[in-house]
Amino acid sequence: MVNVAVLGYGTVGSGVVEVLNTNKDIIRQKAGEELKVKYVLDLREFEGDPVSEILVHDYDVILKDKDVKIIAEAMGGEEPAYTFTKNALLAGKSVCTSNKELVAKHGAELLEIAKKNNANYFFEASVGGGIPIIRPLNQCLVADEITEISGILNGTTNYILTEMSEKGSAFEDVLKDAQDKGYAERNPEADVEGYDACRKIAILTSLVTGAQVDFEDIHTEGITRITDADFKYAKAMKASVKLLGRSKRIDGKFYSMVAPFLVKADNPLYSVNGVFNGILVHGNMVDDVMFYGQGAGKCPTASAVVSDVVDAAKNLGKNVPVVWSKNKSELGKFEECKSRFFVRMKDKGLDDDQMTTIIEAFGDVLYVKAEGVVDELAFITKEIKEAEFAEQIKRFEDVYSVIRVDF
Amino acid sequence: MVNVAVLGYGTVGSGVVEVLNTNKDIIRQKAGEELKVKYVLDLREFEGDPVSEILVHDYDVILKDKDVKIIAEAMGGEEPAYTFTKNALLAGKSVCTSNKELVAKHGAELLEIAKKNNANYFFEASVGGGIPIIRPLNQCLVADEITEISGILNGTTNYILTEMSEKGSAFEDVLKDAQDKGYAERNPEADVEGYDACRKIAILTSLVTGAQVDFEDIHTEGITRITDADFKYAKAMKASVKLLGRSKRIDGKFYSMVAPFLVKADNPLYSVNGVFNGILVHGNMVDDVMFYGQGAGKCPTASAVVSDVVDAAKNLGKNVPVVWSKNKSELGKFEECKSRFFVRMKDKGLDDDQMTTIIEAFGDVLYVKAEGVVDELAFITKEIKEAEFAEQIKRFEDVYSVIRVDF
Repeated sequence: MVNVAVLGYGTVGSGVVEVLNTNKDIIRQKAGEELKVKYVLDLREFEGDPVSEILVHDYDVILKDKDVKIIAEAMGGEEPAYTFTKNALLAGKSVCTSNKELVAKHGAELLEIAKKNNANYFFEASVGGGIPIIRPLNQCLVADEITEISGILNGTTNYILTEMSEKGSAFEDVLKDAQDKGYAERNPEADVEGYDACRKIAILTSLVTGAQVDFEDIHTEGITRITDADFKYAKAMKASVKLLGRSKRIDGKFYSMVAPFLVKADNPLYSVNGVFNGILVHGNMVDDVMFYGQGAGKCPTASAVVSDVVDAAKNLGKNVPVVWSKNKSELGKFEECKSRFFVRMKDKGLDDDQMTTIIEAFGDVLYVKAEGVVDELAFITKEIKEAEFAEQIKRFEDVYSVIRVDF
Repeated sequence: MVNVAVLGYGTVGSGVVEVLNTNKDIIRQKAGEELKVKYVLDLREFEGDPVSEILVHDYDVILKDKDVKIIAEAMGGEEPAYTFTKNALLAGKSVCTSNKELVAKHGAELLEIAKKNNANYFFEASVGGGIPIIRPLNQCLVADEITEISGILNGTTNYILTEMSEKGSAFEDVLKDAQDKGYAERNPEADVEGYDACRKIAILTSLVTGAQVDFEDIHTEGITRITDADFKYAKAMKASVKLLGRSKRIDGKFYSMVAPFLVKADNPLYSVNGVFNGILVHGNMVDDVMFYGQGAGKCPTASAVVSDVVDAAKNLGKNVPVVWSKNKSELGKFEECKSRFFVRMKDKGLDDDQMTTIIEAFGDVLYVKAEGVVDELAFITKEIKEAEFAEQIKRFEDVYSVIRVDF
């Protein structure tokens, strides 16, 4: 029997206990041993809940108990999760987590500590919720040079964009609806501004490059400026607007960003709708592979944490190597990243030399029309560098919208 | 350095050599050691090809060489692959294969031999080509009770169905075109009759149930009877026709089959088009997860074989346990499996009591119309058992088409 402690009895933590109880027999078969939750750590009381019997408020009880071999950290946030995780690993206990903030910031260090102490730090649930992506990257796609990883990494924003696309609603209305349904937080900033997706693409890019990618270095845009008119154009182009976390290798360097992209139907991410996540990986041999599923939610996320717990149980006293060094990954500069841009601006009419200026600024562009949208010009540029685009777009007033194009 | 031998220098075997050479540095990093191809076994000569230097015609050279620790078997077919694999495992060498026939038939036995000899028998490439699915099932989705696995497991048939759907072409015309393009074999039986998909769902179901599923026990239908009229109805229903290999647990038993299904847009398999494969796994905690990518082809398949070779190199002398016993899995009887059926038959006109007979046979049904199709009746039944459907459909003459419905 292997004893497990769960830190935090919120959504994910209570899910971990539920998964371990509900699927007890299957998990014992897969792990080779019974996994027993010996402690749950939470500052709150849960009167009437069976968890009360194993509830502790003092982390030291868990840390000092030599019988506890594996810790499922479901507290979220940086502290005290960081200190708790570090001390557990130093004590030779393995830690499995869904905490993307902690993994993005201290993943490399915690992996190193785990290695030195013959323990493991696993974080399958930190990206893509229940979708297997971390282990497939580390253990399956190992014969490939990964040249791109693009993902719909946040279910809340994907739900909002899907609703806007299908119902023609405004961003604010869909956000309110999503909040009422519990799909979006009361303070939705982390989701709608792309911060959540940013931490996730930072983790994935660290694993792909084998070195530290700091999320602060990743250019991040959210979806708050996307309007129903953008979706009208998207439909006219048989495309959709998706918030992507993307790292793409161009001329030997990875360029990372989080931003809304126009995506066409031949991209498998196009069909990833609602609260679902999809992560597309391109390898030089395997070509495109996509992983799809529920990127959040109590049971899917807990399922991923428990799959890590099972792996930790199978590898007690033995470190499973992961290549993610503390050295900083040399990413390409955002300013030099090349994209095509979809631009909407006020139509100044035939008397103006607007179209001449557009040619001067961007060369030949592809004009686009959408049903029901008038008095504006919309076009797609050729591939140009971010810095050049930023410079040239200044020549125009009344720019309504700029979205990068993934085709 | 770990020495590897490749059996068979056809499409996959030459791909394995190419992947190992092209991605040498990455693979060394992931495996922790250099992987060197010491021998390639093939009966043919390859004059002018650098492989000539390491080509052998006698398997005993490889078997007796104690330096060869890992064998990539890319011969296909049952013999001599079975004997070669068995002898390699008995000698403590690990074997990685893309050979679905062999895995489906002798997987349980070869896994047992591998275990007894502290070696490994890996077969990631046997299902879904380059898509990671075997390792995710064995090592990622281990916290879940898997209740369904449904896959588009054959790229040739999916290409044909996609072309029929998009271009309104007839089966025979698309097949001929696919043969000309090299997407379909001159003898297309294994693909279009569903035999290839059948072996793959047998392997997946063996892994999900942990016991042997014989492919001969799986009811298998191909796509040769699907017509352009079927696609007209599918469009009217906002659905598509997909050849699925499916195992679904109903009332505690798994029911397996390979057959064309009508699939709606809310099923992620709906968007898997062309030569791509998609494998949907449903777990009681993780909900739906899908794995998508190239299900065949030289480099994608070789990528999966080499990922196994890397795993074998990381586990030399140590068996990675896989639950797949030789005992037969207790599948539910096909006759008792329940489905909804889409049926097309000749419209006998108002003078006939055809519609009364339909109610007698199937109860209330849902009638469907399609643009441009006349003189026929088409409807969807409620969920009924296969045996009952087979009995009742005998009451009707001139039945044009029967397709199971996945919604």
